[in-house]
Amino acid sequence: MPEKKQLNIGLIGTGFMGKTHTFGFASAAKVFDLPFCLCLHTVADVSDEAAAQAAAAFGFRHWSGDWRTLIADPDIDVIDITAPNALHREMALAAIAAGKHVYCEKPLAPLAADALAMAEAAEKAGVRTQVGFNYLCNPMLKLAREIIASGEIGAVRTYRGVHAEDYMRDPAGPFTFRHDPAGGGAMADIGSHALATAEYLLGPVSAVMGDCVTVIAERPDGRGGTRPVAVDDVGRAFLRFAGGASGSLEANWIATGRKMQHDFEIYGEKGALVFSQERFNELHLYSSDDPPGRQGFRRIEAGPQHVPYGRFCVAPGHQLGFNDLKAIEIAGYMDAIAGLGPEPFNFRAGLRIQQLVETIHASSRARSWLDIG
Amino acid sequence: MPEKKQLNIGLIGTGFMGKTHTFGFASAAKVFDLPFCLCLHTVADVSDEAAAQAAAAFGFRHWSGDWRTLIADPDIDVIDITAPNALHREMALAAIAAGKHVYCEKPLAPLAADALAMAEAAEKAGVRTQVGFNYLCNPMLKLAREIIASGEIGAVRTYRGVHAEDYMRDPAGPFTFRHDPAGGGAMADIGSHALATAEYLLGPVSAVMGDCVTVIAERPDGRGGTRPVAVDDVGRAFLRFAGGASGSLEANWIATGRKMQHDFEIYGEKGALVFSQERFNELHLYSSDDPPGRQGFRRIEAGPQHVPYGRFCVAPGHQLGFNDLKAIEIAGYMDAIAGLGPEPFNFRAGLRIQQLVETIHASSRARSWLDIG
Amino acid sequence: MPEKKQLNIGLIGTGFMGKTHTFGFASAAKVFDLPFCLCLHTVADVSDEAAAQAAAAFGFRHWSGDWRTLIADPDIDVIDITAPNALHREMALAAIAAGKHVYCEKPLAPLAADALAMAEAAEKAGVRTQVGFNYLCNPMLKLAREIIASGEIGAVRTYRGVHAEDYMRDPAGPFTFRHDPAGGGAMADIGSHALATAEYLLGPVSAVMGDCVTVIAERPDGRGGTRPVAVDDVGRAFLRFAGGASGSLEANWIATGRKMQHDFEIYGEKGALVFSQERFNELHLYSSDDPPGRQGFRRIEAGPQHVPYGRFCVAPGHQLGFNDLKAIEIAGYMDAIAGLGPEPFNFRAGLRIQQLVETIHASSRARSWLDIG
Amino acid sequence: MPEKKQLNIGLIGTGFMGKTHTFGFASAAKVFDLPFCLCLHTVADVSDEAAAQAAAAFGFRHWSGDWRTLIADPDIDVIDITAPNALHREMALAAIAAGKHVYCEKPLAPLAADALAMAEAAEKAGVRTQVGFNYLCNPMLKLAREIIASGEIGAVRTYRGVHAEDYMRDPAGPFTFRHDPAGGGAMADIGSHALATAEYLLGPVSAVMGDCVTVIAERPDGRGGTRPVAVDDVGRAFLRFAGGASGSLEANWIATGRKMQHDFEIYGEKGALVFSQERFNELHLYSSDDPPGRQGFRRIEAGPQHVPYGRFCVAPGHQLGFNDLKAIEIAGYMDAIAGLGPEPFNFRAGLRIQQLVETIHASSRARSWLDIG
Repeated sequence: MPEKKQLNIGLIGTGFMGKTHTFGFASAAKVFDLPFCLCLHTVADVSDEAAAQAAAAFGFRHWSGDWRTLIADPDIDVIDITAPNALHREMALAAIAAGKHVYCEKPLAPLAADALAMAEAAEKAGVRTQVGFNYLCNPMLKLAREIIASGEIGAVRTYRGVHAEDYMRDPAGPFTFRHDPAGGGAMADIGSHALATAEYLLGPVSAVMGDCVTVIAERPDGRGGTRPVAVDDVGRAFLRFAGGASGSLEANWIATGRKMQHDFEIYGEKGALVFSQERFNELHLYSSDDPPGRQGFRRIEAGPQHVPYGRFCVAPGHQLGFNDLKAIEIAGYMDAIAGLGPEPFNFRAGLRIQQLVETIHASSRARSWLDIG
Repeated sequence: MPEKKQLNIGLIGTGFMGKTHTFGFASAAKVFDLPFCLCLHTVADVSDEAAAQAAAAFGFRHWSGDWRTLIADPDIDVIDITAPNALHREMALAAIAAGKHVYCEKPLAPLAADALAMAEAAEKAGVRTQVGFNYLCNPMLKLAREIIASGEIGAVRTYRGVHAEDYMRDPAGPFTFRHDPAGGGAMADIGSHALATAEYLLGPVSAVMGDCVTVIAERPDGRGGTRPVAVDDVGRAFLRFAGGASGSLEANWIATGRKMQHDFEIYGEKGALVFSQERFNELHLYSSDDPPGRQGFRRIEAGPQHVPYGRFCVAPGHQLGFNDLKAIEIAGYMDAIAGLGPEPFNFRAGLRIQQLVETIHASSRARSWLDIG
Repeated sequence: MPEKKQLNIGLIGTGFMGKTHTFGFASAAKVFDLPFCLCLHTVADVSDEAAAQAAAAFGFRHWSGDWRTLIADPDIDVIDITAPNALHREMALAAIAAGKHVYCEKPLAPLAADALAMAEAAEKAGVRTQVGFNYLCNPMLKLAREIIASGEIGAVRTYRGVHAEDYMRDPAGPFTFRHDPAGGGAMADIGSHALATAEYLLGPVSAVMGDCVTVIAERPDGRGGTRPVAVDDVGRAFLRFAGGASGSLEANWIATGRKMQHDFEIYGEKGALVFSQERFNELHLYSSDDPPGRQGFRRIEAGPQHVPYGRFCVAPGHQLGFNDLKAIEIAGYMDAIAGLGPEPFNFRAGLRIQQLVETIHASSRARSWLDIG
Repeated sequence: MPEKKQLNIGLIGTGFMGKTHTFGFASAAKVFDLPFCLCLHTVADVSDEAAAQAAAAFGFRHWSGDWRTLIADPDIDVIDITAPNALHREMALAAIAAGKHVYCEKPLAPLAADALAMAEAAEKAGVRTQVGFNYLCNPMLKLAREIIASGEIGAVRTYRGVHAEDYMRDPAGPFTFRHDPAGGGAMADIGSHALATAEYLLGPVSAVMGDCVTVIAERPDGRGGTRPVAVDDVGRAFLRFAGGASGSLEANWIATGRKMQHDFEIYGEKGALVFSQERFNELHLYSSDDPPGRQGFRRIEAGPQHVPYGRFCVAPGHQLGFNDLKAIEIAGYMDAIAGLGPEPFNFRAGLRIQQLVETIHASSRARSWLDIG
C-alpha cells in the first residue's frame, strides 16, 4: 500500500463551527478511505493565547494569533475558514492568492458581490473550494434526489420547504452580526439551507417572490441601550423552478419550539417525498404504483444501501448524527482536491445561494416577482 | 319536560354532502340536546324518481323533483342546500324570500358578488344562515383558539397553513364544475377551508399576495376531446393578519398521497401550536413555560374537557370522526335558530371567505399584494 | 322498493354504553342500507322516572322502570343489554326465553360459566346474539386480517398486543364493580379487547402464561373507609396461537397518560403490521417485497377501498370516529338477524373471550402455563 | 497546560465493532476533554496480513497477527476486545493477568460462569473494565433516569421493554456463532441491551418468567447441508423489579421491518416516559401535573441541557448518531481509568446481564418463575 500524501489543514476560527470542522476531519479520516493523510497543522484565532488553547484542545500542531501568518505558511495546503462572515472575503481572497484550497463555512459572504469575487478568484487560480452546506450530505437527501431523478415519483409539480428554529425568538437576545443589514436575517442564515436543499433536489430556481418580515424591531445593543433591527425574522418566498415546478419556502428563526425544522414536501405526478431534519435518518416516500388499498407514505430508515451510510455503520437503523454529515462533506471535498470527483459545493454554488437570498430580499422590498439572473 | 317544537328540514341535493348532512341531522339529534325536534320533511333532487329514491334511502317523509316546490312548502322551516355551487344563489335567494332559514354547503357561491347578495338578503329578511365549514367544528380547533386567546403562547407571530389533497392529481380526470373559471380551482375548493381556519384562529386577514398556478392545462371534456383548464391546481398566499402576525397558506389538490392535509403551525412569543387534520383528534402544544430540559411539543388527545367531545363519548382518546363534525355544526346552527347563540358561520362569514379567495386570485393575476377590503 | 320490516329495539341501561348504542342505531340506519326499519321501541332503567327521562333524551317511544316488562313485551324483537355486567346473565336468559334476539355489551358476563349458559341458551333457542366488541369493526382491522390471510406478510411469527388506559391510575378512585373479584380487573375489562383483536387477526390462542398484578391494593369504599382490591391493575400474558405464532399481550388500566392504547405489532416472514387505536384510521404495513433501499413501514390511511369506510364517506382520509364503529357493529348484527350473514361476534365468541381471561387469571395464580380448552 | 499522559490502546478484532471502537476513540479525543492522550498503539487480527491492513485503515502504529503478542506488550495500557464472544474470556483473563485495563464488547462472554471469572479476576487485579453497552450512553436515557429518580413521574408501576430487529428473519441466513447453544439467541444478543436499559432505569430485576421460542429450526451450515437451531429467535420475559414495579420485555431478531426497535414505556403514579431507539434523540414525557385539557406526551428533543449532548453540538435538535454514543462510552471509561469517576459499565455489570439472560433461558426451559440470585 503506497504511502498517502499528507494534506496540511490550517483552521481559522475556533467557535461552534471551528470545533465541528475539527470533529469532521478526525471522523472523516477514520470513516472514509481518504486520498490524503490529514494533518491538523495550524489553528489561528484572534490572539496567541486563544489560538494556543485551541491548538491544545483541538489537536493542532501549531497555532497563531494572526490568520495572515497561517495563510502565508507554505506548508499549509487547505485554509479552513470558520471566522465571522464579514471576514470571509478578505481571508478567502488572501488564501486563494497564496494558492491554497479554501474551505469556507456558510454563508460564503455577507453579500453576493463578495461571493462573486471569491468564486471568480478561486476559479482563476484553479484552487478547490468548498462551502459548508452539510445538510446536503445526508444520505437521505441523496436518496431523495435519486428517487426524483429516476422518475419514481414522476415529474415534480410542487415543492414546500422550510427551515425554522427558535434561537432568535427572545426579544431580549442581543443584536449580533446576524442582525447586520448587510448579510443578516433569517433567510440568509437558515433560509440559505432551505434554498440549497431545494435546488439540490429540483434544480435551479428561475424566479422568486419574497416576503421578508421583521418581527422584533429592536434588540439590546449590549451597552444598556437598544438598536433597531431591519433584517427578516421570517422570510418567505414563492418559487418557480426552471424544471417547471412551483413551490414555496420559509425561513424562520423565531419559530418557538422548533430546533431543526429543515423540512420539505415534494409532490410529483406519481408520488411524493416528505422529509424532516428533526428525524433526518428517515425519508417518507409515497408511490401511487403501490397496490390500491395499500398505498401510503413509507418511512424509509437510513441503512447501508444509502451511500455513504455504510461507511459509518454496517447495519441499518443505527442513525447518523449531525457531526457525521460534516465528515461526509469533508470526504467529498478531499476527493475533489485529489481530482477524484467534482467539488461537492464550491464557491460558485455558495455564490448562487447568496444570489437567491439577495433576490428574495430585493423582491420583498419591491413587492414584486424577480427573475433569477 | 315540555314538548320540543318540531323543525322541518327540506334538503336539496342528494350527493356526498347531501348524505353527510342527513347523517349529521340524525346524529345531532341523538348526541345533543337540541332545542328542536328535527323532522326530515322533504328532499328534492333533479327528478321525481331520484328524489323518491333519496327519500327512502335517507328517511325523508316527502320528496320532490322540483326544488321550487320544496321551497314553496309552508311547512318547511329550514332549506338545506347541497346542490352544485352554481345553483346556490338562486336557491338561497328563493328560500330567503320564502322566509326560510338557509343552510348552505360551502362554498357559499361561485363568486363573492353572489355571496354578497345572499348574505344581504338573509340579513334583511332576518333568517338564520349557516355555511358548511365543518372543520371549524373540531373541538381541537376550539381548543387551539382558546389557547391563543388566553395568551398561553403569547402574541402570535407567524402562521403556516395548508390544505392539500390529491383528488385532482390525475390529468385523465375529466373537466368538472370545479374547473369552471367562475368559482373553480384549488384555492376556492379547499383553500377556502384553510382560510376559514386561519381567520378562525388568528382573526381577520388584512392583505394577501397570491400565487395561483395551473399545472394540468387541459382535461378530458367527457366527449372524447379536451378542454383547457385555467383555474389553480395549487394556490399559495402570503398573509398579513390585522392582529399583527404574518403567514402563508397553500391550497393544493394535486398533492399526490395527501388525503386530508388540512394543517397549521402557529408560532407565538412563548409557545406554538401544530395541528394536522390527518390526526384531527390531536393538538400539539409547545410551551416555553415548561421547565428547561423538559420542553417539547405536547400531543394533546381530544377528551371530554374539549367541548363538545364529551357529548359523543365520556372517555378521552376514543376519537371523533368526520361525520361527527357535521353533527356539531348542525347543533350550533339549531341553537342559533332558537336564539340560544350566534350563528356559528353565517352567510356573511361565507361571503368573507369568497372575498379572500377572489382577492388571492386577483393578487396572483396582478402579481402584487392586495388589501382585503 | 318494498317496505322494510320494522325491527323493534328494547334497550336496558342508559349509561355511557346505552347512549352509545342509541347513537349507533341512529347512525347505522342512515349510513347502511339495513334490512330492517329500526324502531327505538322501549327503554328500561332502574326507575320509571329515569326511564322516562331516557326515553325523551334518546328518542324511545315507550319506557319502563322494570326491565322484565320490556322483555315481556311481544312487540319487541331485540333486547339490547347495557346494564352492569352482573345482570347480563339474568337479563339475557330471560330475553332468550322470550324468544328475543339479544345484543349484549361486553363483557358478556362476569364469569365464563355464566357466559356458557347464555351462549347455550341462545343457540338452543335459535336467536341471534351479538356482543359489543366494537374495536373489531374498524375497517383497518379488517384490512389487517385480509393482509394476513392473503399471505402478503407471509406466515405470522410473533405478536405483540396491548390495551392500556389510565382511568384507574388514581388510588383515590373508589372501589367499583370493576374491582369485584368475580369478573373484575384490567384483563377482563380491557384485556378482553386485546384478546378479541389477537384472535380476530391470528386465529385461536392455544395456551397462555398469565402475569396479573394488583398495584393499588385498596380503594375508598365510598363510606369513608377502604376496601381491599384483589383484581389485576395490570395483566400480562404470553400467548401461543394454534396457527404456530407466539406472542404477548398486556392489559393495563393504570398506564398514566394512555387514553386508548389498543395496539398491536405483527411480524410475519415477509412483512409486518403495526396498529395503534390512538390513530385508528391508519394501518402501518411493511413489505420486504418493496425494492431494496425503498423499504419501510407504509402508513395506509382509511379510505373507501377499506369496506365499509365508503358508507360513511366517499373520500379517503376523512376518518371514522369511535361511534361509527358501533354503527358498523349494529349493521352487521342486523344482517345476521335478517339471515344475510353470520353473527359478527355472538355469545359463543363472547364466551371464548371470558374463557381466555379466566385462563390467564388461573395461569397467573398457578404461576404456570395453561392450555386453552 | 500540563502535558497529558499518553494511554496506549491495543485493539483485538477488526470487524464492525472494531471499526466502531476506532471511530469512538478518534471522536472521544476530539469531543471530550479526556484525561489522557489516546494512542492507537497496536491492532491484532487473525493474520499478520489482516492486522497490517487494519493498522493502515484504522490508523494504528503497530500490528500483530497474534493477540498474545499484543497483550504481552508492556507499552500497551488498555486491551480492547472486539473479537468473537467465544474468545472474550481467554483474552480478557490474559490481559488482566498482564495488568491491563480491559474494554470488552458485549456480551461479556457466552456464559455467566465465564463472565464471573472475568469480573472476579479484574476486581482482584484492580484493573478498570468496561463492557460495550453503548445505548446506555444516550443523553436521553440519562434524562429518563433523572426524571424517574427525581420523582417527576412518581413511583414507577409498570415497564414495557423491547429490542427488536430483523437481521435473522431469513431462514436462508446461515448458522453462525450467534446460533451456538452456548451463549447464542436473541435474548443474549439484543435482549441483553433491553435488560441493561431496564435495570439502568428502574434498578435491579428480582425475578423473571421467561418465554424463549425457536422459530427457524434449522439453518444452512455453509457446507450444503443444514444444522438444527435451538436458541431463541424471540425471547420474552415477565419482570419483577426490586423497587416494586412489574414489567415485561421482548427480544426479537426476526421482527421483519424493524431495524432498531430498542424501546421502552414506563408508567408511574403521576407520569410516563416513552422512548424509541428509532428516534433516539427524543424522549416522550407525560406529566399529570400539566393543566387539565393540556396534558399529553411531550416530545423532548435532545439539546445541550442533556449532558453530554453539548459536547457534540452547542445547539439543540442537531442530533447525535450511533457512533457518538460510543464516544460517550469511551469518555466515561477514560475517566474511570484516570480515577475521576466510577466505571460506567464494568465486568461486574456485564456479568449481571449474562446472569439475567441465563435465568430467563432457564425459566423458559423450566416453564416457571425464577428469582434472580
